[in-house]
Formats: sequence, C-alpha cells, structure tokens
Amino acid sequence: MGVAHALPTRAPLPPAFVESLRGLFCERLHLSEAVRRQHGASETHFEVQLPDAVVYPHSTEEVVALVKLCAAHTVPLVPFGAGTSIEGNTIPVRGGVTVDLSEMNRIVAVNPDDFDCTVEAGVRREQLNEHLRDKGLFFPIDPGANATIGGMASTRASGTNAVRYGTMREAILSLRVVTPDGRDIRTARRARKSAAGYDLTRLMIGAEGTLGIITEVTLRLHGIPEDISSAVCSFETLAGAVDTVVQSIQLGVPLARVEILDDVQMRAVNRHSKLDYPERTTLFFEFHGSPNSVADQVAVVSALAADNGGGDFQYSNLPEQRSKLWKARHEAFYAAVALRKGAQGWPTDVCVPIGRLADCINETKRDLDTASFPAPILGHVGDGNFHVIFVIDPNNPAEQKEAEALNARLVERALAMDGTCTGEHGIGIGKQDWLVRELGEDGVAMMRAIKRAIDPKNLFNPGKIFAD
Amino acid sequence: MGVAHALPTRAPLPPAFVESLRGLFCERLHLSEAVRRQHGASETHFEVQLPDAVVYPHSTEEVVALVKLCAAHTVPLVPFGAGTSIEGNTIPVRGGVTVDLSEMNRIVAVNPDDFDCTVEAGVRREQLNEHLRDKGLFFPIDPGANATIGGMASTRASGTNAVRYGTMREAILSLRVVTPDGRDIRTARRARKSAAGYDLTRLMIGAEGTLGIITEVTLRLHGIPEDISSAVCSFETLAGAVDTVVQSIQLGVPLARVEILDDVQMRAVNRHSKLDYPERTTLFFEFHGSPNSVADQVAVVSALAADNGGGDFQYSNLPEQRSKLWKARHEAFYAAVALRKGAQGWPTDVCVPIGRLADCINETKRDLDTASFPAPILGHVGDGNFHVIFVIDPNNPAEQKEAEALNARLVERALAMDGTCTGEHGIGIGKQDWLVRELGEDGVAMMRAIKRAIDPKNLFNPGKIFAD
Repeated sequence: MGVAHALPTRAPLPPAFVESLRGLFCERLHLSEAVRRQHGASETHFEVQLPDAVVYPHSTEEVVALVKLCAAHTVPLVPFGAGTSIEGNTIPVRGGVTVDLSEMNRIVAVNPDDFDCTVEAGVRREQLNEHLRDKGLFFPIDPGANATIGGMASTRASGTNAVRYGTMREAILSLRVVTPDGRDIRTARRARKSAAGYDLTRLMIGAEGTLGIITEVTLRLHGIPEDISSAVCSFETLAGAVDTVVQSIQLGVPLARVEILDDVQMRAVNRHSKLDYPERTTLFFEFHGSPNSVADQVAVVSALAADNGGGDFQYSNLPEQRSKLWKARHEAFYAAVALRKGAQGWPTDVCVPIGRLADCINETKRDLDTASFPAPILGHVGDGNFHVIFVIDPNNPAEQKEAEALNARLVERALAMDGTCTGEHGIGIGKQDWLVRELGEDGVAMMRAIKRAIDPKNLFNPGKIFAD
Repeated sequence: MGVAHALPTRAPLPPAFVESLRGLFCERLHLSEAVRRQHGASETHFEVQLPDAVVYPHSTEEVVALVKLCAAHTVPLVPFGAGTSIEGNTIPVRGGVTVDLSEMNRIVAVNPDDFDCTVEAGVRREQLNEHLRDKGLFFPIDPGANATIGGMASTRASGTNAVRYGTMREAILSLRVVTPDGRDIRTARRARKSAAGYDLTRLMIGAEGTLGIITEVTLRLHGIPEDISSAVCSFETLAGAVDTVVQSIQLGVPLARVEILDDVQMRAVNRHSKLDYPERTTLFFEFHGSPNSVADQVAVVSALAADNGGGDFQYSNLPEQRSKLWKARHEAFYAAVALRKGAQGWPTDVCVPIGRLADCINETKRDLDTASFPAPILGHVGDGNFHVIFVIDPNNPAEQKEAEALNARLVERALAMDGTCTGEHGIGIGKQDWLVRELGEDGVAMMRAIKRAIDPKNLFNPGKIFAD
C-alpha cells in the first residue's frame, strides 16, 4: 500500500547525539517503536516511515538547543502537531528527530482590547476557542480536524469559515520561529498591518516546517457575533447551488460559512449522522451578525436559492440545530469513509476561480461516474475549493492506481482553469510534481533558492514541498 | 536639505551598455537631466539622487531583456510607478537605470464571474476603478494618491478601506515578476486561496522591487455595494473617538472606512477644502452593504458615538455629500502642507495594536505640544495606523532635526506598544534602522539571506530596506 518513496538506507543516530538528546529532554525523548510509529504514520494513503527519535520540547529555548544539536550532527528534524495533515507533511522521509510540539500548549496571552492572542504552537483550535469564549472572542479558522495552531500555520490551513474570515494567511499577525541556524526570531510585531520589509510571517505560513520551527503564533481574533444562524438547502442542479453562492457574494452578503455537499456525500452524512436530508446537492450556510443583519442576509440568500432551483430553505437560529448541522459537516470525511467497511479516505484538494467551480465539479462528477469506489464531493464553495474523497480499499493496489489517475485528471482540470493543486492541504510529499506543473520550474527554482539560503544543510523537514 | 546618504562616486554607464539599451528601447530611453531628475526626486524630505538613465518598457519581455542586459553589465535597476512613495523607495541611491512602468498600463483581463482582474503594473487605481464601474465591481485599496498597482504592491500599500477589505497583501492573488536572473515567473494561479509551497506572492508584496520587478498583478475585486453611506462625527476626547471604533469592531460592524483626524488636521481641512466642521477630533465613516444592513450599521455606530461623547452624527446617503467628505480626506495631506507657505510635509507612519491607539496618539500629541511647526494627525483608526504630518520648512535644518527627533520618539513609543515603524509606507531608505529595532538583527539577517539568494549581485533597487 501507499506511494513508494525509495530511500537510501539510513545510518542509525550517532550514540553521542542520542546521549546529548537525552541530556536535553530526559524522559521526553522517545525511542520506542510505538511512539515512533505514531509519528511516522498519517491519516491518508502514504507509506509509514519512522523517525529515529521523538522529543517533546516544553519551550522555545529547548527547540533552539535541539536545532543546534541536530545541526552539529547533521540530523534532520520534522515538526509535528496533531498529525492531522493530509499530504504526508509530517512523515519523516529522511528519518531523524520528530519534534512533537503538542506539549507546548500554553495560551501565552490574550489581548481582548487588541483582538489578538499569542499561543504556543501546540495549542489546539478547540482548546483556544474554549479559552476565549467568556471573553466574547473567537478564532475563526476551522479546518475540521482539531489541529494544532502551529500545524495549521505550517500548512496554510483554512476550512469552512475562510469565505468570511480568510485563511491562516490572514489570521496570523506574527510568528516566533526557530531558524535552521538556531536563531529565535519574531517575524513581526502585533500591529494589524505592517510594511516593514519582507513578509517573513507569510513566508513561514505554508512552508511546512522546511524553513523554521514555529513555536508561538500571534493570532487575530474576532468578536463572537450577536446572532449566529444556520440554514440548509438542497438544489436541483449543482450549477443552481453554485450560482446561489456567487450571486450572494456579488451582492456583498457576508456569508460566514457556505459548504457544498453532493448527493453521494449527503447519503453518507445521512447514514453516519442519522439524518434525513434530501440526498441531492446541498448547501450548508452559517450567517453571522446583528439580528437585523442576519435576517437581511437570510432574506437575500433564500430568495436567490429559490431563483436557482433550491428546495425548502431550512433556516434556524437555534444553537442545537446549528450544532447538529455542523457536527454532520465536520464528520463528513468519516461519514464518507464509513460508506465502505475497512476503507481508507483519500481527500483531493483543488481550488479554482469561483466562476469555474460549477464546471469543475460537474466535469469531475462525470469522470467519477465510472469509478469502482464511492467518491463523494464536499467543498468550501465560497472559495472555489472542493474535495473529492476517494473511499478506497487500502489493500487493493488497483484502486490506489485508479484513485491516482482520477486525482491526476482532477488536478489537470483545475490547472487548466487557472486553479491550484491544493487549496488548503499543502504539498507535503503528495503534490510535488503538481507544484512544478502549477508554477513552472522557474517558480519552484525560486522556492529552492530560498530553502538553500535559509536551510543550507537541508535538515528542516527535508524532502517536503520539493524533492531534495 | 534632506537626509544625507554619503555614496561612493559612481562610474558613468559603459557606452556599450548605453548602446544596447538604445537598441532595446529607442526613443523610450531617456538620458536628459529633466527626466532623470523627475525619477530621482520624491514627495518627501529625501535628497534627490538621479538615475543614470530612464527607460519605459512596454512588455514583460522587454523587462526580461533589460534585466539580462543590466546583469551582464552589473548595472542597478530601480522600478518606478507613479513616484508617490513616501520613504524614498524609488530614489536610485546607487544610480543605474530607473524602469518606469507607467506605460505598461493595459488592463489585461477582467473576470467578473471570478471577482478578479489582471492588470499591467503601471495601471493606476483610479483608471482601474473607472474601467470596472460598469461591471458592478470595484478594487477597494485606496492609499489616497493615485498610485500604480505595481507600486502599491511593492510597498504593501493600504489606506482608508483596509479595515474592511484588507491591504495589498490580501488584495493580490498572483503576480508576474521578472527575477534578477531574468526569469519571467507567475507567483500563483488565480484561485482565491492556495497552499502550494512558499508564498512567493506575499514575498514580493512589500519587497520594494528588491527581489523582482512586478510587471502584472492579478487582483481580487468586490461587488459595488448596493448602498454606500457616509457620516462625520466629532468627539470631546480622542479616547471617545477610538473607543467608538473599537466597540463597533467588537460588535462586528463591518465598517468600510473609518478615519480619524485631530483638531489640527480638521482646521487644515476646513481651510483647504472650505468646509466648516467642528475643529475637534473627528471620525469620517463609510458604510457599505444592503440598505437594511447600512441602516443597521449606522444605528449601532451612532449610538456608540453618543455614548462616547460624540457630537452631532452627520449621516448622509447622498453621493455628493460622500464625495465632498472623502475629497476632503484625500486632500488632507495637501491641506496640512498648506498650513504653512512654502512648507514640505513629512508623514510618519506607525501602527499599533488597536487597544493602544488612543494612548499612542495622546502621548504623541503631548510630545507635539512644543513642536515649532504644525503637526496634524490623521489615521486609519480601525487598523491602529496613524500619520503625524510634520509641516516643515525645507530650508531649515533645525526643523528637519526636530522632526527627526519627534519621529524617533514616535517610533520608539509604537515599538514599546508592540507596534510597527511602518503601517503602509514601507522601509525605503527612511526606516532602515527602525526595521532592525523592530525585528532584531536576526530577523533582518533572514531578509538579507533571502535577498542574497535571489539577487546575489544586488542589482535590484540596491540600498533599500537594508543597507548594502
């Protein structure tokens, strides 16, 4: 199973290095196969590859010491958060030390008057939002998984709220980063905007740990809206659903979330979450604002939905209805995988200009018609980003091959529409060839030049984004 | 007059180089002192320094040929748009060729269904908005000056709409860039979001032409709101004005613009634009949305203003009222300079976390009390960004020195509040020492490493952001 990545046989870690590592981390150094395996696997179809060691730092200073030690012994380092990435981003393909940041999970500061907070990289998004709730603030980025903030920064994550609140690119004000030469830098101050030199913050966001290890993140926060309401509406056609969203955006409706689920995905959701929605193309909405503003948004969107062949527009401002809806959406991936016993999910991730989205999904659905496994579709329709989930038998190489071919055609289709091979999952080891197709050898050459300049020994998550 | 930047005596351009340049650009090569002077001056207090030649390319291909020629002869290049930058960003401190992109002013494509467009770097923002108007779309970033889009990208410009629509960082989807080794790259596709490798787009935004010459920009657009209304309100105290804005943001009011002008600035505006506003701290507002939503926003904000010591909340949905208001705001810099005959304006540019803004402005006003020249304040209060305009006599070195000292204390104050030395003007030659204070030697070292990797000969706008 899995994509083969032939690797040179690796030498074991030098004993002197291991001793120094133990000196730094004591019982927080793990060499057991169980812990290493947990850090060498991923949630998707990639081959498991074990790190040689796993450490759990408790401070930026410990990360600095670790980086210096690894540099002295030429040992690779792979930062690790919650392990929920999709493209094999944390698999240690060159071995070395996995730096599990999950115990760096302190909320360092919340500044309600400034609408920001600073957290250690291992803080998870649900933990942060629980902490913020009684301050009337929330952190909007929601990729589904309860990922760490550091991991979300490293893959430039986004998810269901991005249409209104942006992605991690917009959510982060500043990062604390340990660089490959062991410096501890802050990429920016806490001002909302700055024109102070190169945008090191954005350079680190989405770099997948190849340019630095993020240890602290300063985030923009938002006031919890006075009213939060949700709605569900199914459509006769996919184009009708997409047009409803495009026209809403054209009219300036500040949709907080709008998710599309196709008929196959709705069947999976109904089964898994014991619901009885119509099994047709469906939009899930969330509206944020004052009660007047939300009422206004709902009036505009429900009228547009009716014009575009939408059925019953089921609106609710009851928190329990909303929770039920979004719980179903959050479980959609697992619902898809549950369509088939013993199956594994392989989520694709293209994003296209929004005017091409209906075409892209429709052409993809035609291509999926003959697939020998279920392949539901769900997406962040306001951003032009959608996922096909290939529900494949992990022990059947033919299905793996078929999924690869379907994914290849999907990415080709998105690139032909001037879209991207990855809206929010990153490149990892799964999309490296596509990155070159997307930006050309010259674009990737500039990335490589930056990598060589900042990590000349190629020790920070080597083999990711581009091959060594 | 002006900040002294002692430079080595430069050799004249090699005759063979000039001949090749003439071969490439014919009558679009300028060697006259008049044209060179126009490209060596700036709108502010920096010493004029002339380029050796000025060329006006008409295509990316011509820029590629130019870059290769300059590389072969080790001649510096300085990209130039409308020349409206503030920190000496386009002054050719090492001489060489100024690349005036103003004749690359084609609107390449508008994609209304995708809410985006692609323009050449020399297109000006007013030209673009005129072109877009009948398509129901607009480009929101408004730094005041009618700058070029390429120049706005290069300084990470923002302005009055940033509180709602973000800065150039958020507005740009993709760039076409000629790199120092003469490659013609696109930094991204047109998808709304992407997680495809390093964020080359954001790296080029704000790089002030030191890493590449931007020749095309793909921009996010927005639907023209159904209703646009404006309001003016003066306040008893500065804190009252700032609190009104902070509380509005807390309640999620999607303010489209909110500008603060202090008593001195209001006096200047009244005189210059023949208006009769109260000469107290004043907020200028703009609201975008459906008529219901705008009415709702106005109700919330006017109530908050009243609670915070605001006077008469003068609301209007008449376009001519709105135009009058924003014309006055756009002319505020010139109104300030006009306070004093023969004076020059020196605009500062700090940005602080919004909870610190009232303190920062108040402390600054106390510091300005004893200034020997007028120093009005205006700012983008929703972002925590404000400008003091030192209205100084350009022939009086003592005033120049006094302004420098006031600016130094202002930046110190902003940095102590975890703010930035520049919210939107960039570093240029004016803020290089402050950049080091803001991010530390280690942060700037990473910028230098990137610069060396991408422009090893240091030919692209040398001497900007950091000293050679």
